[in-house]
Amino acid sequence: MNITKVNSFSYEEFIEVFGNVIEKCPIICAAVWSQQPFSNPFDLEVAIQEFIDNLPTSGKEGILRCHPDLAGGEALRCQLTTESQKEQSGAGLTLLDGTEKFRIDQLNTQYKEKFGFPFVICARMSDKNKIFQQLNERLLNDPMAELRTGIEEVKKICHLRLHDIFSGSPVTKP
Amino acid sequence: MNITKVNSFSYEEFIEVFGNVIEKCPIICAAVWSQQPFSNPFDLEVAIQEFIDNLPTSGKEGILRCHPDLAGGEALRCQLTTESQKEQSGAGLTLLDGTEKFRIDQLNTQYKEKFGFPFVICARMSDKNKIFQQLNERLLNDPMAELRTGIEEVKKICHLRLHDIFSGSPVTKP
Repeated sequence: MNITKVNSFSYEEFIEVFGNVIEKCPIICAAVWSQQPFSNPFDLEVAIQEFIDNLPTSGKEGILRCHPDLAGGEALRCQLTTESQKEQSGAGLTLLDGTEKFRIDQLNTQYKEKFGFPFVICARMSDKNKIFQQLNERLLNDPMAELRTGIEEVKKICHLRLHDIFSGSPVTKP
Repeated sequence: MNITKVNSFSYEEFIEVFGNVIEKCPIICAAVWSQQPFSNPFDLEVAIQEFIDNLPTSGKEGILRCHPDLAGGEALRCQLTTESQKEQSGAGLTLLDGTEKFRIDQLNTQYKEKFGFPFVICARMSDKNKIFQQLNERLLNDPMAELRTGIEEVKKICHLRLHDIFSGSPVTKP
């Protein structure tokens, strides 16, 4: 994929390719399509980031709430998006033993009860042990700081998903 | 469904039930979950409307771009959401003859070329003939007026989808 091709996309083609760079939020890439032409992939990434930054707090919380739990019910029921499946699997979250699964369920629940949104982390920049450590640490944050941290992780996930698309290795749809 | 039950929902349950009241935009109901408790269904509807109204123009365009064409490719490929399928079918759009199908494809294309988003209309408050008439008329609008009209139609669709859920006749997921 190159930026010239992207700039020739109809909004339908654009959503088909970039619709899930923010998990389950095709509205975001659908919105930034208006800003075509983009000079380069970074320009597109910045447009997405700016759209997110300009959302009210509830909209940012809404983005986080569209994310699945790590090693949660959607993963167990094979209902993850293709991108999430690859990311969670790459971080070793699909191979937890019984004790680890019990512990991550406990931490996910505590986190959601405290913040009202799920723990979001860029799994591809992490691994199982770091994720457990981060979950424990971030549980101590105050809600506004944690909202900011969650959104920064969303942007890292988006960066890598965009990178995959532009480098020619997007995840294959089933 | 009643509002007491809705107010007891986790955000996951809330998204499961209300995630598609705005077509393919679960982020919107995920965002307004923060405003629980709601006094009544109307209170929830207003929260959704206000969230939409506060989006920038690009965000409103993004919402429209998440909608399928009427009698378009997604309908042909059976890729409509359950809600859209029911709505388009109820308006007689799944039974167009060859001439009508050719004409609606032409009009949809002209509309999208002019406005950069698809023609959105609350099909359940209309029928095939009125939809053709509206498509022809609205093609003459200026873009900002048409964006406002499209978003008002999105709100009508949302109103009826909410009504179905609260009256106990939500569309059945396949």
